[in-house]
Amino acid sequence: MIERLAIIGVGLLGGSVAKAARATGVAREIVGVGRDLSRLSAALSERVLDRATIDLADGVRGADFVVLGATVFANESLLETLWPVVPRDAVVTDVGSTKAGIVNIARRLAGSRPVGFVGSHPMAGSDRSGYGFARADLFQGATVIVTPTEMTDAGVVKRASSFWETFGAHVSTLDPELHDRVVAAISHLPHLVAYALVEAVERFEPAALAYAARGFKDTTRIAASDQRVWQEIFLANRAALRPSLEVFRAALAALETLVDAGEPGPLEDALAKIRCRREALR
Amino acid sequence: MIERLAIIGVGLLGGSVAKAARATGVAREIVGVGRDLSRLSAALSERVLDRATIDLADGVRGADFVVLGATVFANESLLETLWPVVPRDAVVTDVGSTKAGIVNIARRLAGSRPVGFVGSHPMAGSDRSGYGFARADLFQGATVIVTPTEMTDAGVVKRASSFWETFGAHVSTLDPELHDRVVAAISHLPHLVAYALVEAVERFEPAALAYAARGFKDTTRIAASDQRVWQEIFLANRAALRPSLEVFRAALAALETLVDAGEPGPLEDALAKIRCRREALR
Repeated sequence: MIERLAIIGVGLLGGSVAKAARATGVAREIVGVGRDLSRLSAALSERVLDRATIDLADGVRGADFVVLGATVFANESLLETLWPVVPRDAVVTDVGSTKAGIVNIARRLAGSRPVGFVGSHPMAGSDRSGYGFARADLFQGATVIVTPTEMTDAGVVKRASSFWETFGAHVSTLDPELHDRVVAAISHLPHLVAYALVEAVERFEPAALAYAARGFKDTTRIAASDQRVWQEIFLANRAALRPSLEVFRAALAALETLVDAGEPGPLEDALAKIRCRREALR
Repeated sequence: MIERLAIIGVGLLGGSVAKAARATGVAREIVGVGRDLSRLSAALSERVLDRATIDLADGVRGADFVVLGATVFANESLLETLWPVVPRDAVVTDVGSTKAGIVNIARRLAGSRPVGFVGSHPMAGSDRSGYGFARADLFQGATVIVTPTEMTDAGVVKRASSFWETFGAHVSTLDPELHDRVVAAISHLPHLVAYALVEAVERFEPAALAYAARGFKDTTRIAASDQRVWQEIFLANRAALRPSLEVFRAALAALETLVDAGEPGPLEDALAKIRCRREALR
């Protein structure tokens, strides 16, 4: 049971944390922190938040659980700001899509003062953003990756994991660098590729978009994702994104070589192998 | 009203044509032609087909509407075989994903004998294949591109278009070469990219697939498509696929340059423009 849950950034993810906490009763009091009070008014009037503030120090005062729900770089800078003032026994976590950056900041700050930080990545994003799309059941059945390091207190990992599990999520733990490679591969690379696909169609044959059917729409759905969120993710995870792009280019070139060779057999074999891997994900 | 509808290849598309024709009553008699009678038995016992044969000449005898429902290259060779024997007043069309190839064959054959051929491409495919997935409502709301040339009789275009409209499809007409560029852009390129994405993830970080969420699954759903169907499509549409790949590579490289430059503004602007185009497709 959490006495006071502080959520910094009450958008899609932070707002869903607030709604899920309210729905499950896991926190007695829920405080929302934002840059603009008017944006918190819906959550207040729906009684999803008990209190709202634009003052970070005020927001985390007396909190025993803190969730950073802003974008990747904003969370990193918020973590620096709250580190000296957050209660010593609080668990602090975030919801950002990259983890090495914020974990390294926490590692550096740990020299000044011990704070119970562990990174979290709830893989429950959407191409929609903002509190208006927040849902109490957003984490139901989703995977949340928690990224402890050798310095993280086991009790903190346990409390953060239980927090997400209360909302119906499956928790995995991963080393932060491996986490960033994993999400580069299955999320950031596909996002960049989806954006490039839409751009390529427009450049190659603008008439084509009028004929887009389910295949194209599914393949490029994530290219409708919020550009503010995604420029930060791409920049924050450059170190893993770059080599994943290299590998993607090589994989695409290999298929293109098979197409150019014009021999049905080897091309069919290559596609069959890939199909088999993809079908394992159904 | 069609007296005798012959469908050559009774799989996902051909089977759906048969079911839709039966459901709408557009054809008095429906004949299925396949390479293997046992594979037509389900459609016969469901009374979707009135008659089944493995003999193409027998299958098209007395038919006033013929649909080639096999794969791209198979349809091309079937067209050559049926050309001399199909009734003179029949409309012949196909369901293949590329059109310049089969239309050129029809153009060449037209010298020997006039046949009412026009290409069709019902954009209602699926990553599933086979008669087991055929549905009477597959074409409901789908786009069917019909590809007449300067040589095509207007009456044939009209009868083929009405045929698809009976099943609830929206019919567009396009020049076969433009059709092939359009589908290279919104279908064949995305398929090749989706296959390459799955392969890249496996090569770059095999652990990542275990964390695949909705974004990755949607983006790569079409990589579970049938390899026999798709090797033919890629090979058949090489002429348009190759330049579309060039453009895609350039679009991806442009985004990567923005990521590498590390400046949030220009990257965010580029993503915002693409997002806007993608959102227009919702």
